[in-house]
Amino acid sequence: MIPEEIKKFIDCFSKLPILGPRQATRLAFYLLKEDKSKLKGLHDALAGLSHLSVCEQCFFIKEDGSALCRVCSDPKRNPKVIAIVEKETDLMTFERINKFNGHYFVLGKLAEKGILEPLQKSRLAALKERIRKKLGGKVEEIVIALSATAIGDFTSDLIRETFKDLSKKITRLGRGIPTGGEIEFADEITLLHSFEKRS
Amino acid sequence: MIPEEIKKFIDCFSKLPILGPRQATRLAFYLLKEDKSKLKGLHDALAGLSHLSVCEQCFFIKEDGSALCRVCSDPKRNPKVIAIVEKETDLMTFERINKFNGHYFVLGKLAEKGILEPLQKSRLAALKERIRKKLGGKVEEIVIALSATAIGDFTSDLIRETFKDLSKKITRLGRGIPTGGEIEFADEITLLHSFEKRS
Repeated sequence: MIPEEIKKFIDCFSKLPILGPRQATRLAFYLLKEDKSKLKGLHDALAGLSHLSVCEQCFFIKEDGSALCRVCSDPKRNPKVIAIVEKETDLMTFERINKFNGHYFVLGKLAEKGILEPLQKSRLAALKERIRKKLGGKVEEIVIALSATAIGDFTSDLIRETFKDLSKKITRLGRGIPTGGEIEFADEITLLHSFEKRS
Repeated sequence: MIPEEIKKFIDCFSKLPILGPRQATRLAFYLLKEDKSKLKGLHDALAGLSHLSVCEQCFFIKEDGSALCRVCSDPKRNPKVIAIVEKETDLMTFERINKFNGHYFVLGKLAEKGILEPLQKSRLAALKERIRKKLGGKVEEIVIALSATAIGDFTSDLIRETFKDLSKKITRLGRGIPTGGEIEFADEITLLHSFEKRS
């Protein structure tokens, strides 16, 4: 009794990682109630994504027309300071602090097991190659901006070991009580780190 | 530093009622990682929605090509038994019980204040008109399938009053302990209803 178009929509949208069938259904009826310009907007937004690909230098997203992403092709940024992040969204959050003027390197989502995937290994190999051949064999700093989790710790150690001869400095984001965080609710490890890093 | 296409996507999708900016961002990067056929599928699913409009008889969704929705145009269904639902999704849930062979009437989402909106008033007027002119002045049954909330109760009373001369029977969905529901956790009103309706 339900129009095919609705079924298709629900089927298609409920397969996305963030929506279940209920939400996809609600979305369908919401869109049907909105005026067609909203539908058109979403439509164009989806179409826009197909004009993007991966920057071959840092593995962030770039426009199809350009060889590199906007960070990598910005002459005002320092290619010899490289922040290694896990996900594209981490890069975007990092950009918001407006403090970092180097390049990025997107490693890709870390697996639960803590073992690097083939794709991640080849990305790291490409970075090594790039430092050796295009950045004079040694960069100024590698900032490890991975999550403060066990897997992040494990991977950080691995990166430190891998790049120890390719960077003057290898740092990692500091740990401590987050802004607005209350001591009462801080876990012991965070508290220990913040105590050690007291200033 | 972020490609325009991503910004547009996030902007557009985070305005939907079910997604925030974070989820829209995650969705963008998820889609960028999937193969293009998935993007195409979503694209077509969105385009499909623009071929739908509202059934002028019951106010459910219908395909643009046909005059009425699938329920209203099904000759095997009884137009003299009408279930009044609030939302299109309620109709869809109701259809799943495979027990109801009448028509529907979508009233539209009830406002918190319990006052009918102009659109809802005009829909009810259209139903009255239809019963008078096309259904012989009186239908067999109106099933009020509104939520068991205070606004649902209020609106049900209003519908009973409005249609008292236009239907032989006006019923409302029974209340009680839901299947799988434990007595211990039932609220008092549900328990009272289920006690009164014991059989």
